[in-house]
Amino acid sequence: MASTIDDLGRCAIHTMTNKPWSLAQCIAGYQKIGAGGISVWRNVLEAQGAKVSGKMLRDAGMVVPALVRGGFFVSADPKQRQSAMDSNRVCIDEAREIGAKMVVLVVGAVPGMSLEEARKQVTGAIATLAPIAQDAGVKLAIEPLHPMYAGDRSCINRMTEARHVCEQVGHPGVGIAVDVYHVWWDPNLQEEIALAGKQGTLFAFHVCDWRLNTRDLLDDRGLMGDGCIDLKTIRGWVEAAGFDGFNEVEIFSSEYWATDQDAYLEKIRAAYLKHV
Amino acid sequence: MASTIDDLGRCAIHTMTNKPWSLAQCIAGYQKIGAGGISVWRNVLEAQGAKVSGKMLRDAGMVVPALVRGGFFVSADPKQRQSAMDSNRVCIDEAREIGAKMVVLVVGAVPGMSLEEARKQVTGAIATLAPIAQDAGVKLAIEPLHPMYAGDRSCINRMTEARHVCEQVGHPGVGIAVDVYHVWWDPNLQEEIALAGKQGTLFAFHVCDWRLNTRDLLDDRGLMGDGCIDLKTIRGWVEAAGFDGFNEVEIFSSEYWATDQDAYLEKIRAAYLKHV
Repeated sequence: MASTIDDLGRCAIHTMTNKPWSLAQCIAGYQKIGAGGISVWRNVLEAQGAKVSGKMLRDAGMVVPALVRGGFFVSADPKQRQSAMDSNRVCIDEAREIGAKMVVLVVGAVPGMSLEEARKQVTGAIATLAPIAQDAGVKLAIEPLHPMYAGDRSCINRMTEARHVCEQVGHPGVGIAVDVYHVWWDPNLQEEIALAGKQGTLFAFHVCDWRLNTRDLLDDRGLMGDGCIDLKTIRGWVEAAGFDGFNEVEIFSSEYWATDQDAYLEKIRAAYLKHV
Repeated sequence: MASTIDDLGRCAIHTMTNKPWSLAQCIAGYQKIGAGGISVWRNVLEAQGAKVSGKMLRDAGMVVPALVRGGFFVSADPKQRQSAMDSNRVCIDEAREIGAKMVVLVVGAVPGMSLEEARKQVTGAIATLAPIAQDAGVKLAIEPLHPMYAGDRSCINRMTEARHVCEQVGHPGVGIAVDVYHVWWDPNLQEEIALAGKQGTLFAFHVCDWRLNTRDLLDDRGLMGDGCIDLKTIRGWVEAAGFDGFNEVEIFSSEYWATDQDAYLEKIRAAYLKHV
């Protein structure tokens, strides 16, 4: 049984949810609806840089669960892999600057390489980055992506494979970001969530919904309640595993991005209270 | 290692691959490129009925691996479930009429019911149908569907759950149709294929490809070679498990449907010889 939710104190919103907005607009909007947290995508740091962004976030008193996103470690070309590592070091440094608790990792995949081989590259990269992230006071959260992204975005498509990487790396700063959009269908979800709780790797919980008749593989996520995911049941599993962090709203939706973002935020607030 | 392929003798094509065509056109087209088999979708039976269709197929000397598709067993409404069972009985009878070796089952799912509960309904339905199908000389092949169809098309999204249903039903006429499009990403694929071989449930092998930047969840499959699936490796696993049936080409593609179907069949022939 999920706990009762009466307000948005434990709600964090991903800035990409309101793609048309700047960081300042996101901060103002999320504070207006009472969200306690904000997870920041790197694109909204560009205008003013990480240092100034960090000051804006601290001045606003917003908790920053995550900077999104690092990763994309996989390549057949060693130079590209090195370039990805450099980019991830910058990302970790930005996370430190803005006070983000973790960097979310979309680990990557490339056509022509087996997913198994790709996961080996990912494991090596994360093992290298873990102590660097620890020095920066930042955790690394592997986000399993839906199998429909296995072609070129992520070779980790279930919590099981994310766990295997965590177990192999064996560093307390490496864990898992559970996004319902990607894993809701997984028959092993409940047991993997419980296991992540026991292993101390349950770092994040992302919510949105899976629309029936999804029209686009990337940008047609549903607002909570728009689709078929049993959010309360999954949140119950996550809480039973000991998770007490933020419920992070992360919705990519061309449809919602085209609407008035203030009115949309009101919908998010209502949907969060009713369906999460 | 997959065996060498020199011709299309062990190739069967699903009529839906050439959606614009009638059954007669499909038979003529597939014979022209030397395909040994044809898997028939129910829509192409409508014009002339199953009996006449059966005669057409026998006269042409085509092997018919499968009639596609039965299933959609899941509903919260017992009347709808009964109606689905009636429809599946008709489907089994049609399969007998046209000499199809199996009926492929897309098992169904409904929003608001847990996938676990849905799988219980599916197991019950298949257990009821198995002896009926056996009497008709027809096998039942459960097709695991990609997790992106878990919302409303299939509560069985990996070979593992298909195996569980087979094990629970425990009938020699119930097995699995392995379609690379749905399962290529599954980290357990090789071991599940081997297990299906041992259990005698490896009934069918379907090929196509997964396009990067897939534009539509239903009708944007790739021709073999268009995408990222390592077909030869998977066919090697299937053959190592003892499978000696047809490699069935099943491609839903608005893009290819809009082209000249004779020219498209030539592409299929070349792609089959090169990439399967």
